[in-house]
Amino acid sequence: MKVALAQLNYTIGDFESNKVKIINAINRAKADGADMAVFAEEAVSGAPAYGLLDRVTFLEASEDALIEIASFCDDITVIVGLPIMNDCKTFSAAAVIHNRKIIRYVTRKNIYQREDVGFISSGSGSEIVVINGKRIAVVVGEDALCCDEYSSVVDLVVNIHSSKYARQRIEKRYDKLSQFAFQLGADYLTVNLVGGSTDIIYDGSSAVFNSKGEPLALLASFEEDYAVVDLDNARPVEIPYQNKTANVYRAIKLGLSDFFFKNGYRSACLGLSGGIDSAVVAAVAAEVLGPENVHVLLMPSQFSSDHSVDDALEMVRNLGLRHDIVSITDVYTQILDVLSPVFGDDTDFGVTEENIQARIRSVLLMALSNKFGHVLLNTTNKSELALGWYTLYGDSVGMLSVLGDVYKSEVFDIAHWINRDREIIPENIIRKAPSAELRPEQKDTDYLPPYDETDSIIYRMIEERQTLEEIINAGYDPDVVLKIAGMIRKNEPKRFQFCPILRVATSTFGVNRKMPLTSRCRY
Amino acid sequence: MKVALAQLNYTIGDFESNKVKIINAINRAKADGADMAVFAEEAVSGAPAYGLLDRVTFLEASEDALIEIASFCDDITVIVGLPIMNDCKTFSAAAVIHNRKIIRYVTRKNIYQREDVGFISSGSGSEIVVINGKRIAVVVGEDALCCDEYSSVVDLVVNIHSSKYARQRIEKRYDKLSQFAFQLGADYLTVNLVGGSTDIIYDGSSAVFNSKGEPLALLASFEEDYAVVDLDNARPVEIPYQNKTANVYRAIKLGLSDFFFKNGYRSACLGLSGGIDSAVVAAVAAEVLGPENVHVLLMPSQFSSDHSVDDALEMVRNLGLRHDIVSITDVYTQILDVLSPVFGDDTDFGVTEENIQARIRSVLLMALSNKFGHVLLNTTNKSELALGWYTLYGDSVGMLSVLGDVYKSEVFDIAHWINRDREIIPENIIRKAPSAELRPEQKDTDYLPPYDETDSIIYRMIEERQTLEEIINAGYDPDVVLKIAGMIRKNEPKRFQFCPILRVATSTFGVNRKMPLTSRCRY
Repeated sequence: MKVALAQLNYTIGDFESNKVKIINAINRAKADGADMAVFAEEAVSGAPAYGLLDRVTFLEASEDALIEIASFCDDITVIVGLPIMNDCKTFSAAAVIHNRKIIRYVTRKNIYQREDVGFISSGSGSEIVVINGKRIAVVVGEDALCCDEYSSVVDLVVNIHSSKYARQRIEKRYDKLSQFAFQLGADYLTVNLVGGSTDIIYDGSSAVFNSKGEPLALLASFEEDYAVVDLDNARPVEIPYQNKTANVYRAIKLGLSDFFFKNGYRSACLGLSGGIDSAVVAAVAAEVLGPENVHVLLMPSQFSSDHSVDDALEMVRNLGLRHDIVSITDVYTQILDVLSPVFGDDTDFGVTEENIQARIRSVLLMALSNKFGHVLLNTTNKSELALGWYTLYGDSVGMLSVLGDVYKSEVFDIAHWINRDREIIPENIIRKAPSAELRPEQKDTDYLPPYDETDSIIYRMIEERQTLEEIINAGYDPDVVLKIAGMIRKNEPKRFQFCPILRVATSTFGVNRKMPLTSRCRY
Repeated sequence: MKVALAQLNYTIGDFESNKVKIINAINRAKADGADMAVFAEEAVSGAPAYGLLDRVTFLEASEDALIEIASFCDDITVIVGLPIMNDCKTFSAAAVIHNRKIIRYVTRKNIYQREDVGFISSGSGSEIVVINGKRIAVVVGEDALCCDEYSSVVDLVVNIHSSKYARQRIEKRYDKLSQFAFQLGADYLTVNLVGGSTDIIYDGSSAVFNSKGEPLALLASFEEDYAVVDLDNARPVEIPYQNKTANVYRAIKLGLSDFFFKNGYRSACLGLSGGIDSAVVAAVAAEVLGPENVHVLLMPSQFSSDHSVDDALEMVRNLGLRHDIVSITDVYTQILDVLSPVFGDDTDFGVTEENIQARIRSVLLMALSNKFGHVLLNTTNKSELALGWYTLYGDSVGMLSVLGDVYKSEVFDIAHWINRDREIIPENIIRKAPSAELRPEQKDTDYLPPYDETDSIIYRMIEERQTLEEIINAGYDPDVVLKIAGMIRKNEPKRFQFCPILRVATSTFGVNRKMPLTSRCRY
């Protein structure tokens, strides 16, 4: 049996172009002599459609597209995902099309992702269809099936999926699929979505494993791909080494790219401070959009170190970015001036004055964005986001956060990766000690240990969901652990208003982590 | 049988004071000769605790408090809500305590609220306990029960609840309870939470209905209350008239009050423009916090009408607010000046320049907030939020939105209600045509029909979830309907970064309405 796996990048609500992509792949599969073509979960509609799934018009458009797709399915079996409504509930279904007829809808049973719950109802789960004498279990979303029950009953499992990228999830998914296939004693085939959808990145990485748990085909990660696998004659392939930094980088690039192209945005702007975060964002944006479409603003103040502007300018030259230099000093002085009757005797320099500087920068950046139609990119990283080391409505601004799910220590890895062939980000920027430069001689390490230690603690809290006791028992300084936990808690209200974050972790601020803003819990 | 209903205001994670409140009420019930005392859902922990419900330490603290509560339950049956963990899942449970022993946990089955799903698992549902010979069905969350099955089997239904306020929900809940009680042929008793929890307002309105569907007791709305009802001898009471405007006003007051007091915040600041929205927010804040704790900033520009400052000052005098006047003109000129090399020849006045003014105001307000520790209150209303008639990082700022779930046309009703005894909001402010005053002669009605018509269309789209076709068929101008739908869609990304909104509707932006930011759907 020859199966075509079509791993494509769909856009939510773009039924016309999704449909054309699917039909083109069906025609290609037929030309390749495939008996079956498989597409991802919610391929017809794009995902995740959230509240659009409540709309009858959206679901009707989806079913209309399916009917047209079916008309191309002569001499081939097609399994393709779409949302369907039944009894006023919306399900994620796999439509099984055989000889131009929709012969079955199999609906997803388990809803894993907390943020999806409530839009998709739990369906009946996997079902067996018999196609050309083969017993095929069709599963929507990854599901272990009930191995005892299915073992030796099915010849093949076809899984259509919409699995989001997170660090190390690709490796883990391969492991799990291998195990499923081995336990079931059947071939296991999965087709995943690929592409960005605002904050979400579907990584693709569709695969076929045989009943021994060996991979027969592994499709590309982070890009569209297509393969035809002859299940009876294919030979095992090698699982390639997964470079963690390269994967995160590719994920971010894909997320950024689709955010722009699917929304019809063309150019970006951001503030280039001479620090590593904005340098990495500028480099990624330049690669995705072309340097001529990235407009950076250098906005020094009296607290900026001499090298900040020089380093930023070197970066501008390396990439050929569009840039302007605007000093914020005069505006800053003017604002302090108009506020002086309000502040009265309280003229001490403090957080208020630091924040005013950061907020002036956001006014300038948003003016640039409004005037030229650039999308403002946010440059805050996950460590800063956790600790509240950014100014609300200051450096928190932007339409999309590129690094909000990337720890500071990882930002360095990505910077090195970007520089792997030639120096794009000046060494100076990578080597200098991180600082917000909002007051004289400020350094990030004034308050907490170096980032690799701080990041480990944050990681354990946010992603591993370890208790403070567990983290302290693992050998971390109790004072530091409590301090970080307190900072994370204290900054919940600030994070609430943050922009969408490209997601590369199992737990991302503002998405699959929701905390009450009003509580007496100190941590 | 005498039952005490204790309708109390709890704080999330404040186990000590929640426990003391509960124990005090138990002691009072015992002194009143009650056979049973009933408390709301999640009374012990406070609600909604979201991600805290994943934490073993949180659940342990909750159970510890319950054990201490139980030790006070001699000679009385107590039914009280708390989250419990079982098999790595968290359930919302009613603990039934009889003679100091926890004799049963009944867990909630139906999770109605989309935003709660994923934190609380679905439990087994109602159970019958026999107390002093009475068969009592214990239900967590409002549930119709299975009338046929329960009819004539139970003597009493005890429901513990955590129902959020929304317009007209109190009336509807009374209707439903009356119907449940009548169909079951049993007394139906419900105790609800009361109080604010960031954006959520629990309205209380606990009640007892007899088997004829008549109300035997109706507890207060929007405040703590306590009542002892002798089920065998109580006489029906009247359902009071529900004044919609008064209820929304009380809901907002309670939400604002608890946001401040539960978080330990003491003072607020906001910009007073001379328009109706900021006037209403200032009046509510002054009533909740005292006028001396409300610091307003008047920030006129060259586009402000003459009467704006005068009207705002009259409002300041009426209430005795702390205030300052800071003109933004010089800062505005300075910013245009530093940006002029960047903007080059493009010197036309447009949205960019309008937004700069709004953003300067937010820089000043945040400086005031930072310097004095005031909580900045947002003044955007629901109509503006829907249409995108506000500036991101400009008048969108604030830690809490007071009117973000209140339509513009309702803001007028509330203003009249605030003025019911004496003129607090100057008539001039109420009477003038709404305008953002960001350019000469600007009026809100330049673009769309008057607010009552616009609001009806938004209401149908957002809260009634009507299709565009349905709205047009109801007689609205198709062009206007499409224009509004397009504006709502276009402003999804802007709304994404909005602050928490006090909720008074069934569908509030950013909460129980989630839309993809990347899609090809035009509406």
